Amino acid sequence: MIKTWTKPDRPNEESMKQRWDEKKKLLSAQQMKLKNHKLPVIVLMEGWGASGKGSTIRSIIDNLDPRFFKVTSMGKPTEEDQRRPFLYRYFQEIPENGQFTFFNSGWGSELVDKRVHGELSDEEYVKRIDSVKRFERQLTDNGYAVVKLFMQVSHKEQKARLDALEDNKDTRWRVSEKDRWQNKHYDQYMDVFNQYLIDTNVSVAPWHIIDAKNKKWAKLQVIEILCDAINTALQNEHIAVPISQNVFPLVPMPKLADVSFADAKMPQEEYKQKLDELQKKLSQLHYRLYRKKIPVIIAYEGWDAAGKGGNIKRIAAALDPRGYKVYPIASPEPHEKNRHFLWRFWTRLPKSGHIAIFDRTWYGRVMVERLEGFCSTNDWQRAYNEINEFEKELTDWGAIVIKFWVHIDKDTQLQRFTDRQNNPDKQWKITDEDWRNREKWDDYEVAIDEMIAKTSTAFAPWHILESVDKNYARIKALEIVIDEIEKRI
Amino acid sequence: MIKTWTKPDRPNEESMKQRWDEKKKLLSAQQMKLKNHKLPVIVLMEGWGASGKGSTIRSIIDNLDPRFFKVTSMGKPTEEDQRRPFLYRYFQEIPENGQFTFFNSGWGSELVDKRVHGELSDEEYVKRIDSVKRFERQLTDNGYAVVKLFMQVSHKEQKARLDALEDNKDTRWRVSEKDRWQNKHYDQYMDVFNQYLIDTNVSVAPWHIIDAKNKKWAKLQVIEILCDAINTALQNEHIAVPISQNVFPLVPMPKLADVSFADAKMPQEEYKQKLDELQKKLSQLHYRLYRKKIPVIIAYEGWDAAGKGGNIKRIAAALDPRGYKVYPIASPEPHEKNRHFLWRFWTRLPKSGHIAIFDRTWYGRVMVERLEGFCSTNDWQRAYNEINEFEKELTDWGAIVIKFWVHIDKDTQLQRFTDRQNNPDKQWKITDEDWRNREKWDDYEVAIDEMIAKTSTAFAPWHILESVDKNYARIKALEIVIDEIEKRI
Repeated sequence: MIKTWTKPDRPNEESMKQRWDEKKKLLSAQQMKLKNHKLPVIVLMEGWGASGKGSTIRSIIDNLDPRFFKVTSMGKPTEEDQRRPFLYRYFQEIPENGQFTFFNSGWGSELVDKRVHGELSDEEYVKRIDSVKRFERQLTDNGYAVVKLFMQVSHKEQKARLDALEDNKDTRWRVSEKDRWQNKHYDQYMDVFNQYLIDTNVSVAPWHIIDAKNKKWAKLQVIEILCDAINTALQNEHIAVPISQNVFPLVPMPKLADVSFADAKMPQEEYKQKLDELQKKLSQLHYRLYRKKIPVIIAYEGWDAAGKGGNIKRIAAALDPRGYKVYPIASPEPHEKNRHFLWRFWTRLPKSGHIAIFDRTWYGRVMVERLEGFCSTNDWQRAYNEINEFEKELTDWGAIVIKFWVHIDKDTQLQRFTDRQNNPDKQWKITDEDWRNREKWDDYEVAIDEMIAKTSTAFAPWHILESVDKNYARIKALEIVIDEIEKRI
Repeated sequence: MIKTWTKPDRPNEESMKQRWDEKKKLLSAQQMKLKNHKLPVIVLMEGWGASGKGSTIRSIIDNLDPRFFKVTSMGKPTEEDQRRPFLYRYFQEIPENGQFTFFNSGWGSELVDKRVHGELSDEEYVKRIDSVKRFERQLTDNGYAVVKLFMQVSHKEQKARLDALEDNKDTRWRVSEKDRWQNKHYDQYMDVFNQYLIDTNVSVAPWHIIDAKNKKWAKLQVIEILCDAINTALQNEHIAVPISQNVFPLVPMPKLADVSFADAKMPQEEYKQKLDELQKKLSQLHYRLYRKKIPVIIAYEGWDAAGKGGNIKRIAAALDPRGYKVYPIASPEPHEKNRHFLWRFWTRLPKSGHIAIFDRTWYGRVMVERLEGFCSTNDWQRAYNEINEFEKELTDWGAIVIKFWVHIDKDTQLQRFTDRQNNPDKQWKITDEDWRNREKWDDYEVAIDEMIAKTSTAFAPWHILESVDKNYARIKALEIVIDEIEKRI
């Protein structure tokens, strides 16, 4: 793209000044509209070292209300960053509804740098490109405006700028070794940048190449593109997003109605013995995971009173507390609700070598949010694919993803609810909401069948835990966890 | 303390077993009470390497509900940690109301390690001890139960354990160089531990030394202490906390009623010229701060419509967006409200070399929370000192703390409210709440006078910005920021 790019003609000074003033005013007004329409905007500023990324951002924000934007500059990933999926630190920084995030360099540069230095094989590069495309598409599908800019300067211009910075003792420190290296290997970098721009130039988030030689002209191009993009996004606000076709291999799963509890029983004696044996085994495996730095994500969903809590406890008891966390998931808090629905799960991902257990999960989107109307039909219909992509990201990163549906029948639930109601020690466990949910059992069953069918991917299939006999379900869970870990060690 | 400590007598096996079972049951029940009473518990587990800290925590939590606790293990501070006050990473991990955090080693070990390795001068050590004492006292004052345990093993016992771990190829990796070093320098470590325990042994959060030679006995001691501490905390729930006397030097400040606006004016021409000049200067200072790694915290409070937003904008416009963040502070979200009121500010502290601008601040506690009854009288009365201690922590860390009260008179506010109401572009800026707050102007004035008088410490005094003429206030703010930075560079 850069290689075949034609520089646009630069207008004269006066015309630039006039257009700039106009757009600054417009952007100020747009800012309020964004707030009212709850539209979030991501500006990804990529380009050559010393091409003026920072100063351009600065001139654009200088009369925006500082409460509505943040600028994020990321250097090389830290050791902590490297123990998480590479998109983790970017996902963390996405704005809330109605706000801007400016990325002063982002995932593009990170990928290109790695590629140039031979740290990414062809295969890994392709995988990362897929990840980036999914990430950007998920953002735009979820209502984010994503504006991608590439600041272009020539080899000569870059060198001149670096020299000028270095000649001044106050600015010398701003020239990094990386900048010099980049200038020295300009052509090589150019090829990789060029390929990256082509690979990630999609219609929902296209690249804009900015002629960055003249600073005023560069700023003007950027603000004009930004204003246009915001206008378009405001106009498209209520357009339904096409539902992507599933591209992941699926594993066939039974319908809930066909799950039998007949043989899913375990006598107390056998249970105790197995529990002890399996917990010892899992405990040892946990140390090995830790040393091999393999991350594990265990997701629990299930009917109310199915026995999720007790099941989780039996897994957790076998683990070293330094190496796992349990995340109980309730309805999202405001700052969570105001972002991509997966944000609160991305930000809770474990470090490599650690285990995260989710007590309820991202599948809330296609169960409670679907049935209670907390999101639009388009939202939950899109979510199957978004979730599969999320779990693909996790397994590509190297994680073991284990998903449990803790299952009981309707009669068992009634019996347990009644027990809880009648037992003063257990009354806290039962609420009116549980009874209300119970009334919707049939609707839930339809939603759950659809969910299990559409998200049992080969890399992250569902496991059904028959939990009328809780002993049986606990042992089955332990066996599955052990099995999945052993496959990988 | 350890040096003069007498080992308690160990009960026989049978009696230990019986007491253990009893306490496990009790703790399970207490857990629900903690939840209902919204009482948070911090368990700080310190002690020698290989003394069994981790395995003790593990046996205690193994039938707690994993939704109600987390275990936090921290190694050496990372590079990121080192760019923040040393208590930052611990403050981040404090539990929500009704939950436990177990610290598997904490601030005590960090301090002792540094001290043993000569990385803390006497003076710094004393400062840190003060910080720790304030931290722990603030926690208990704010309703946290803080249980501090020290796991004691002899030099010989530690050596035997390390040898045993090392003899087994599966556990060899668990013996760190630090453990070996500690064992080799046991006496030296003993002295420093001992001094630390004495220095931080306060009545609200006393140390408990655990005889950790026999593992069962160690666990029993720990759980008994924990159960007792929870009982006490539940009983003391509604006891008012004594209000500490102020110990920090205060700067005399005028009452708001005595602030005159007569000379606080600046013609547009002079304003434009000064603004330009001062912003250039601040811009350069920002780079120098960045390079010298000095953190800056700018706190804005003021009357509604006083012009905080515009004032902040003029500061922010001079800064490099990579090096600052503006935090608009609204009412706390649930996960924030369920923790120490300063938690959401601790977690937003800038890295060294960066600037954080708070648009409304922790002073909400002694203004809106006081006047609207969002906290108890005891809470807000205690807060003056808690805030002074917080700011002391920040300045001790090396931060420049600048606090602005953006001031107008009542008539000016009325005029601006009316303007906003009548101007369609500005209507979003005015809400019913603003009018309601205005009715309480006199109550607010009393609260603000008290706040300014009690929290204008020598290390973080208030600056009043006369903002009837906004130009004047903006220039004054810029001058103060520049001045405070220049004093430090």
